[in-house]
Amino acid sequence: MKNSPVDELLEFVRFPSVSAQSSHAPDMRACAEWLRARLTRAGLDAQVVPTGGHPVVLAKSPHVAGKKTVLIYGHYDVQPPEPLELWETPPFDPQIRDGKVFGRGSTDNKGQILAHILGVEEALAEGDLPVNVIFLIEGEEEVGSTHLSGFLETHREELACDAIAISDTGMAADGYPTLSYALRGIAAMEVRVSGPKMDLHSGVYGGAVANPATVAARLIASLHDAEGRVAIEGFYDDVIPMAEWERQAAAESPLKDEDIARQTGVPELAGESGFSAVERIGARPTAEINGIGGGYQGEGSKTVLPASAFFKVTFRLVANQTPDKILDLAETHFLRNAPPGVRLKIELGHGGFPFGIDPNGAEGLAARRALEEVFGRKPALVREGGSIPILGHFSRILGHKALLLALASPDCHAHAPNENFPLANFHAGIRLNRAFLREFARTR
Amino acid sequence: MKNSPVDELLEFVRFPSVSAQSSHAPDMRACAEWLRARLTRAGLDAQVVPTGGHPVVLAKSPHVAGKKTVLIYGHYDVQPPEPLELWETPPFDPQIRDGKVFGRGSTDNKGQILAHILGVEEALAEGDLPVNVIFLIEGEEEVGSTHLSGFLETHREELACDAIAISDTGMAADGYPTLSYALRGIAAMEVRVSGPKMDLHSGVYGGAVANPATVAARLIASLHDAEGRVAIEGFYDDVIPMAEWERQAAAESPLKDEDIARQTGVPELAGESGFSAVERIGARPTAEINGIGGGYQGEGSKTVLPASAFFKVTFRLVANQTPDKILDLAETHFLRNAPPGVRLKIELGHGGFPFGIDPNGAEGLAARRALEEVFGRKPALVREGGSIPILGHFSRILGHKALLLALASPDCHAHAPNENFPLANFHAGIRLNRAFLREFARTR
Repeated sequence: MKNSPVDELLEFVRFPSVSAQSSHAPDMRACAEWLRARLTRAGLDAQVVPTGGHPVVLAKSPHVAGKKTVLIYGHYDVQPPEPLELWETPPFDPQIRDGKVFGRGSTDNKGQILAHILGVEEALAEGDLPVNVIFLIEGEEEVGSTHLSGFLETHREELACDAIAISDTGMAADGYPTLSYALRGIAAMEVRVSGPKMDLHSGVYGGAVANPATVAARLIASLHDAEGRVAIEGFYDDVIPMAEWERQAAAESPLKDEDIARQTGVPELAGESGFSAVERIGARPTAEINGIGGGYQGEGSKTVLPASAFFKVTFRLVANQTPDKILDLAETHFLRNAPPGVRLKIELGHGGFPFGIDPNGAEGLAARRALEEVFGRKPALVREGGSIPILGHFSRILGHKALLLALASPDCHAHAPNENFPLANFHAGIRLNRAFLREFARTR
Repeated sequence: MKNSPVDELLEFVRFPSVSAQSSHAPDMRACAEWLRARLTRAGLDAQVVPTGGHPVVLAKSPHVAGKKTVLIYGHYDVQPPEPLELWETPPFDPQIRDGKVFGRGSTDNKGQILAHILGVEEALAEGDLPVNVIFLIEGEEEVGSTHLSGFLETHREELACDAIAISDTGMAADGYPTLSYALRGIAAMEVRVSGPKMDLHSGVYGGAVANPATVAARLIASLHDAEGRVAIEGFYDDVIPMAEWERQAAAESPLKDEDIARQTGVPELAGESGFSAVERIGARPTAEINGIGGGYQGEGSKTVLPASAFFKVTFRLVANQTPDKILDLAETHFLRNAPPGVRLKIELGHGGFPFGIDPNGAEGLAARRALEEVFGRKPALVREGGSIPILGHFSRILGHKALLLALASPDCHAHAPNENFPLANFHAGIRLNRAFLREFARTR
């Protein structure tokens, strides 16, 4: 008996394919193997390709000469599920409630890539696949796609294509067709501040030595000025201001500032002066602390002056900022602002370039027609706040800028507890795959 | 066969009597019971007295009319041993290396109070105890002595005495006799900063909402000005400046700034402008972060904008600051400095008044003679940076300011991994008990 699409999605989400945690390496391999088998069953020639890290799953439809080729990219790795206690149901035991699948990876990115696989399977079964398709599904998207650019380089010939499609972005409003024409880049860094050689008694020594937790806090505080702008010297030098039509598109977006306030539950929105929340998220660069720690975190009090403290920071970038330059500027900033009583250890993390396409080009228009057909209204044109670091590599190595066909709901809780994927988006995603491949096949 | 004093110390340190961690409540009771038995064997009338928290051990020498009474205070609870991975040998499996006992509580306070017990036992065995002795050994010193003031109130008659002696302070230099004539007070607070209702994707929302980790950092940074002074309005209003003789005593202390740099291993000393490190520690109030946390702290990166972050802060106080007023000022400061995009939850913790005696009074002089006799040189007069919150209650309820007879080594690592107690200090402590009781018996 054939499994239903929904059963298959549940099966896919059950793999705890957490790329950041080395203990999950066996789950990563099992998940990749499951995908290979699933793609084979869909009628593609599929393989699991080892890399220096987690493997890539690569699959091709039977080649038909004279047809264009579309590469569809996705990822089977997921974010760590912690904090576990905030999940209503276990992250890797997916449940359906209120028409949504709840589980880590349900939206990001398993539900979305599976919809594309099912669309292609359906077309192949009907003998109606209008293009050649290559699926490239990696296992390191959530940890910076470390090995994918090398993979693209070495498989450049095999991956030759006419367009790249990705569903890993969010809809501007629930069920609202959305073409994301820009994404922010990213640059990650971890800073460890060390002072005394051991934790000290905060009474016996407090006052005479720099407290690494206090220094870490002061370094973080130095990242922003009173207007919410990033206060690193040179940080905005390469930023291209928004065009007037872009500010107009942002103002017309179905996503309003009050939606962002509601989705996040904050008492009040915040951010850089002079921009709407939609603009702050999509079109302005940021510096966000992802984690901070130091000293005693347990029950009760402990009068300790900690030996060290750390913070993890990611910068989101917009055109034409580059991750290397931003990390350089940030490193200089932290070293300049650290007092002599501490030592800094700065680890540079993954980086990704900001990304953008012209939504009025032939490919952009094909995507917009497909979106309008499936969802029944003109798609919103948005700048996304998130980052897909691999997009820059696709452009550079394969020569195409990816088309970002949104299937994630604004309330999907990606990267957070209770991540979910509406079944409506899942089914629409299958239809969108078919419509887009057909529309793209018609372009010259 | 009688156990040696050192064997008994190891036995005492083996109890993981961590008052802050509720899982250790049975260990606390077992440790108190061990003390009761030990004091009984020494010839005292000993009992374990329940309180609303961890029990008090109370013991009295056979009463001799016409003799003065000395109350000796100590505590059998210890700080949490974490971080465990930094201990060379397990915290509760004490080991002797290089003439020192390594283990949590070896110095703070088990080794020191046991020396006093052994001194009194020796005097009783010789029929030569020059005063009546009361031992009061509590189990909540490391968590703010929550129930001791109530205990002092209800047992006021029974605890009537002529002097109070405590060995829970540090020597100014290794083996250097030290009378601590002042200690700082303390006021503890925990601040939790909450923003979004859940952890957010830092790309999807970053830039439009206040990041609680960043806000926590900015609140911490607001605690100090560029001169290292605490920047809370009114913080210094009640501080009595050091007298000239005090600055002189600080300058003559065998503890030099370079010793503090060496002990702590910091690249450079830091702190409030205009004061030496010895003064900053003993005579100036501080604000120290004891712990900070928020967001992702695990392996790798996670691009999350955390729902909340927290920090634990303790203020060290000097005469005439009071914990309640300082906590009030700090709470006002944090509430005033928090942006509208977050909510603050402020928990006020334990407090203790700063403390001081006149080192030239009759009791102070008796203590100085005893210290000089045992250690063979004139004792240093120091202001200690630490806090013993109960001292204020002793003064108020029992009518005596405690004499602080230092037995802790500067390298004892109290409150930190690899806490240790030199056996030399242990044996000297037994002698100091006998000398002090004799000298005090002679005062008028």
